[in-house]
Amino acid sequence: MDKIVLIGSGNAATCLGKAFHKAGCLIMQVFSRDIKNAQELAEQISSQPINSYYNLRDDADIYIIAVPDSVIHTVAENMFSKANLGKALVLHVSGNTPLNALSRVFPRTGVLYPLQTMTKGNEVDFSNVPVIVDSTFEEDLPLIETIAKKISEKVYHFNDKQRVAMHLSAVFSNNFVNRMYTEAENISKTAEIPFEIFHSLILETARRAVESSPSAVATGPAVRSDYRTIQSHLDFLEEDHELKQLYKELSLRINPDLKLF
Amino acid sequence: MDKIVLIGSGNAATCLGKAFHKAGCLIMQVFSRDIKNAQELAEQISSQPINSYYNLRDDADIYIIAVPDSVIHTVAENMFSKANLGKALVLHVSGNTPLNALSRVFPRTGVLYPLQTMTKGNEVDFSNVPVIVDSTFEEDLPLIETIAKKISEKVYHFNDKQRVAMHLSAVFSNNFVNRMYTEAENISKTAEIPFEIFHSLILETARRAVESSPSAVATGPAVRSDYRTIQSHLDFLEEDHELKQLYKELSLRINPDLKLF
Repeated sequence: MDKIVLIGSGNAATCLGKAFHKAGCLIMQVFSRDIKNAQELAEQISSQPINSYYNLRDDADIYIIAVPDSVIHTVAENMFSKANLGKALVLHVSGNTPLNALSRVFPRTGVLYPLQTMTKGNEVDFSNVPVIVDSTFEEDLPLIETIAKKISEKVYHFNDKQRVAMHLSAVFSNNFVNRMYTEAENISKTAEIPFEIFHSLILETARRAVESSPSAVATGPAVRSDYRTIQSHLDFLEEDHELKQLYKELSLRINPDLKLF
Repeated sequence: MDKIVLIGSGNAATCLGKAFHKAGCLIMQVFSRDIKNAQELAEQISSQPINSYYNLRDDADIYIIAVPDSVIHTVAENMFSKANLGKALVLHVSGNTPLNALSRVFPRTGVLYPLQTMTKGNEVDFSNVPVIVDSTFEEDLPLIETIAKKISEKVYHFNDKQRVAMHLSAVFSNNFVNRMYTEAENISKTAEIPFEIFHSLILETARRAVESSPSAVATGPAVRSDYRTIQSHLDFLEEDHELKQLYKELSLRINPDLKLF
């Protein structure tokens, strides 16, 4: 049985802890600075809650640091200085943190990054979620891959630069897409249109991009240089200079030949 | 039985013609300037193909003009001058064309606009697609609504201004969203990452926006002011000034308090 120690009790730690527990792994310990948070998660995954680095066991197969990016390095230093983990394999789960955030502290380090928004309240089924792995030493990669495959069928090995590109692409596919939805929602509100009108369009647009390629299914006034429609949209946005500007820029990304002033 | 004459044989005309035919309406005639196009569609929906305005019958319940926005007015003028349609109820199917594009020609006019990307090759099930209706005369609205309800369960009555707002919102929810996917696809290519990695994220993002509200489910580095991640993304985009600028602007739309230089 794979033995895991989990550092953190937030969104990522909770979703991953539950998923590994469900997949039959043993979560030996859950660490959180706040023992209540550690207890809350530990109870759900039959684990031992701890809030002191000194109590970290040294016999787990893998230590997973699932904390905010900004504190990964500090947490790793605390683990190293207060527990006997010099030979441990230590992973972080961040898409955007280079491997050396850990490898400056521990010799054996790696990454296990699920490409999925994780929220405490929502149990995540990782089976179809791409999980990205990497390691400082090639010989540690098989174990990390084995662990990743416990929860996902889609495990990829990417280096630091690829992970940044991937995370950046995810920002466009998720955060910026969601912003486009939000702009639509705001515009609808001003015209007293129920946003639910766009639900089928939103789902269909996502489905089409996934079934073929987004660049192949571009439609709309920008791609067909429909100046009349574009002008009516710009007129509508007359009083929101910033959004009007954004509309123009996005239209130009779609069709760089457009003449917009 | 509702008797419809269809003007046009392109994407919208084809999808709508098939849907109305399937719903049990009689498509009396299909007009196209190119008789071959008229024939191709007419055959599929048991209709009569014509390519001369002089041959338009005057006894249909509704005339549906499904042609590109830019020629709606010209087509209407041709219909009016060459056929005996002074009392006919004439609709266009454009989200972004005001009602008066027709009402300057015909007395009885209306709109029947399905909020759905229509492509000839893809048969569209309109049952869950919002269809927007409007009319110059209030007394024509019930008939237009009745026809719209033949193909869709979601029929809304919106005025010109609401239709522009709706179309603009659709551009954000569809065209601009698809552009975000395309940017992600391009970034992925440069890093030799398969775009399929993002498929589940794309579908999940759409699902979440639809199940709650997009403004309620914003995540990512911009919303949590994660400057370290944002900086790594900007560094990655260093050589693509335009995309880097767009990344900043979208991040600022998400979180106006961000300090980005």
